[in-house]
Amino acid sequence: MEFSVEQIAQMLGGEIVGDKDTKVSKLGKIEEADGDSISFLANLKYENFLYTTNAGAVIVNRDFQPKKEHRTSLIKVDDAYTAFTRLLEEYQKFMKAMKVGTEEPSYIGQGSKVGTNAYRAAFSYIGDNVTIGDDVKIYPHASIGDNVTIGDGTTIDAGAKIYSGSVIGKNCYIHAGAVIGSDGFGFAPQADGSYKAIPQLGNVILEDNVSVGANTVVDCATMGSTVIRNGSKLDNLIQIAHNVEIGKNTAIAAQTGISGSTKIGDNCMIAGQVGIAGHLNIADKTILAAKAGVGRSIRKQGEIQMGAPSFKQTSYLKAYAMFKKLPDLVERIKNLEEKSLNSPTEK
Amino acid sequence: MEFSVEQIAQMLGGEIVGDKDTKVSKLGKIEEADGDSISFLANLKYENFLYTTNAGAVIVNRDFQPKKEHRTSLIKVDDAYTAFTRLLEEYQKFMKAMKVGTEEPSYIGQGSKVGTNAYRAAFSYIGDNVTIGDDVKIYPHASIGDNVTIGDGTTIDAGAKIYSGSVIGKNCYIHAGAVIGSDGFGFAPQADGSYKAIPQLGNVILEDNVSVGANTVVDCATMGSTVIRNGSKLDNLIQIAHNVEIGKNTAIAAQTGISGSTKIGDNCMIAGQVGIAGHLNIADKTILAAKAGVGRSIRKQGEIQMGAPSFKQTSYLKAYAMFKKLPDLVERIKNLEEKSLNSPTEK
Amino acid sequence: MEFSVEQIAQMLGGEIVGDKDTKVSKLGKIEEADGDSISFLANLKYENFLYTTNAGAVIVNRDFQPKKEHRTSLIKVDDAYTAFTRLLEEYQKFMKAMKVGTEEPSYIGQGSKVGTNAYRAAFSYIGDNVTIGDDVKIYPHASIGDNVTIGDGTTIDAGAKIYSGSVIGKNCYIHAGAVIGSDGFGFAPQADGSYKAIPQLGNVILEDNVSVGANTVVDCATMGSTVIRNGSKLDNLIQIAHNVEIGKNTAIAAQTGISGSTKIGDNCMIAGQVGIAGHLNIADKTILAAKAGVGRSIRKQGEIQMGAPSFKQTSYLKAYAMFKKLPDLVERIKNLEEKSLNSPTEK
Repeated sequence: MEFSVEQIAQMLGGEIVGDKDTKVSKLGKIEEADGDSISFLANLKYENFLYTTNAGAVIVNRDFQPKKEHRTSLIKVDDAYTAFTRLLEEYQKFMKAMKVGTEEPSYIGQGSKVGTNAYRAAFSYIGDNVTIGDDVKIYPHASIGDNVTIGDGTTIDAGAKIYSGSVIGKNCYIHAGAVIGSDGFGFAPQADGSYKAIPQLGNVILEDNVSVGANTVVDCATMGSTVIRNGSKLDNLIQIAHNVEIGKNTAIAAQTGISGSTKIGDNCMIAGQVGIAGHLNIADKTILAAKAGVGRSIRKQGEIQMGAPSFKQTSYLKAYAMFKKLPDLVERIKNLEEKSLNSPTEK
Repeated sequence: MEFSVEQIAQMLGGEIVGDKDTKVSKLGKIEEADGDSISFLANLKYENFLYTTNAGAVIVNRDFQPKKEHRTSLIKVDDAYTAFTRLLEEYQKFMKAMKVGTEEPSYIGQGSKVGTNAYRAAFSYIGDNVTIGDDVKIYPHASIGDNVTIGDGTTIDAGAKIYSGSVIGKNCYIHAGAVIGSDGFGFAPQADGSYKAIPQLGNVILEDNVSVGANTVVDCATMGSTVIRNGSKLDNLIQIAHNVEIGKNTAIAAQTGISGSTKIGDNCMIAGQVGIAGHLNIADKTILAAKAGVGRSIRKQGEIQMGAPSFKQTSYLKAYAMFKKLPDLVERIKNLEEKSLNSPTEK
Repeated sequence: MEFSVEQIAQMLGGEIVGDKDTKVSKLGKIEEADGDSISFLANLKYENFLYTTNAGAVIVNRDFQPKKEHRTSLIKVDDAYTAFTRLLEEYQKFMKAMKVGTEEPSYIGQGSKVGTNAYRAAFSYIGDNVTIGDDVKIYPHASIGDNVTIGDGTTIDAGAKIYSGSVIGKNCYIHAGAVIGSDGFGFAPQADGSYKAIPQLGNVILEDNVSVGANTVVDCATMGSTVIRNGSKLDNLIQIAHNVEIGKNTAIAAQTGISGSTKIGDNCMIAGQVGIAGHLNIADKTILAAKAGVGRSIRKQGEIQMGAPSFKQTSYLKAYAMFKKLPDLVERIKNLEEKSLNSPTEK
């Protein structure tokens, strides 16, 4: 995994200033990089680091002219930031492509099929009648129940658990320890105060390009499906209850919880530690501030809410500013009351 | 797993209208069901779906008389909803009963015993001196430490971890990724600012019929036991700290956290994302609204609290309604102050 | 694992009153202990338990003189609490030391090295080029990626996942289900509303003596490292986002979340369910109350904050006391307004 500055410059269509034979094997920040690393300089605010960096090579914009001497080789490209991002992506793709084949012991049940270029780690478990596409990577201790379908290019990371009947699309990423398809929390109260479990027989459907964070849980539907649509991204430690539907390209930050049967629109942005009650509808492009507690449906697109129970963020912030001053306000009321007592009103 | 309409009608004591030989293999909602599914119609609000449904059969009340033509077969019973629920339960029991035997490789330590009708998945781990009852199902990557006891009919789902010394009752359900018996968070601050771990040598006791959600964590006691009593139900991603005791038939929603040594009563209902401080007593039948932060013991049964720090929900909601209007209130105080300045009080 | 009262007294430098041959094998609370247990009495508030306890032996202070008869043997030492704590620690050390060797099947990749006295459980997974120190314990279903380094005396508990490239120090404890090094939540919004994943190529560094709780997640850095410094202790179900840095000896309670690139100082105490926004600096010795939502950097050492958005705890509690009385305050304003209407101001 070592590349010469020349090889990288060729890939990026760049021009070399310095030693074309320098070898690099890592990517790093210009201020932290060592001699085996390649880095980049896009924002001239950081220009001084160029003259002190230990990086083997630095990608810069084509029009950049150094003002002092530097040890590092330069690769000049049209847009240094874009070129570096491309390098990051190629590096990641390369690393992922290297994981191929089956380590033993692994387990695969009857009637299950795995596509080409797959990776099945030692201790990975695939149940019966599972259909797995091409370029799928299944890491150690991942567990895939019976009758699951997984699309091309998807990664199931270490210890992720996919319950039976789940449908996972293409190019999804299920991070370590995530649980897809666990029972919804449904219990019918009985006359004696005890609870009887309501069978949870539905499944989970993740469309394509969905990302599910580490230790996040997506419960199966009671009947039908819990659905997360194309391109939505979930961070770590999130709770998605039974029969929830999440639209396209919605991003949800860590530790947020969404209660049963709630429908979230497309392109929403939901911050961390938010809670949303059950059976609500949240309009497209809704933005929810961190720790918001949503108790009512949000009908208007693009609304920004905060607080618990939540309402418009601008209004919340005004009210909260006053909340901080409540002790002063109480003083002012006291003063008015005293004045009022002494006033000639009674006459 | 295909059944004829006749077989199902016999089981439910129902009467067939239509084709007794239609085969069904799934359960579905009347509006979504396909030809392999059986569904139900209990609430006449949904009657119109009966005339368009693709379901192979629909369970209806005995006195139901269709007003239009329908393709689906009917099974008439005394109470359609109850009959369908029974079918759901039978289906789930059947599916669970099918998992039996031991897949390899699995691991079982010295002196451990497993009852009849057990399922031990590939990559399941059972330590030394473990006692496991009948009809226990242990899924892939479940890990059961030394000296654990597990009662009849309990399920340990994929990747759940039961630390050594835990005692799990009958008919419990430990969902995927749950952790039972991890160390309590106990550290003694030292003079130099560092922490020294306080050994956590107690265990966890779950009584019968306890449900623990996916990725929920129940810490062991420092000494003695962390206890969850008969019939209590915990949702996903919950934190139960060391030496907590939870009474009977208490239900706790996702992402709630209960701090060390707190005692929760029977038949409480605790919503999601609630936090409860340590060393408190929470009375029976307490109800806590989502996101409540409980800082004091609750002595009176049946109290409903909200807010952080929490107090009576009715009072909280009144105060919060005023909070929203704080900017208006400040205006009103300003007006009063201006008037007061112009008043003849001083004379 | 049975010890005589004589053996324990020798270890603690104690003096026996009663039967030196009594055997004990467990440690318990004086009010709950059975005949196989040893307990302690330090606080005389609990003296009455001494006369009724079933414990085989009880450790007491050297100057303690019983006022009634007791069945249990006594071990007299200079400081009963300290002696008992020492016993707890020795017991835990002993239990840990007993786990040694390799259970099969286990997996270890190419170029990986494991030190002496290691425990590698069945179904534990170690990737390629991993370096593991002495006295390291790796429990079932723990998964350690390629190129990881783990220092002496560290425990990786059941089902914990360490992503490739992580650096784990000495005497760390990674509890069950914890995830170290998962991808940071970084996505670049595209013109069509979709998201493109930003490669997360950094790692996680845990210095020595770090504890990470069950099902807690620590994301890797985008570039560079997410760092947790010497002696910091993390409880369960915590979220640490990419590029976060946590100082020395900082303690964080369960279900707290820290957003990307935030730097937390040394010796902070962060309670449960706290949320901290991204790119902030939190000064040394900061204390954050449960459920605090921190939206701004905290520059002053030792500040105590509460609320969301958080500010000084003393101010918060004053404002919150007034918040509870808001309905009364509104009444008082109404009264003033009515009086004001009737006042002779206008004349």
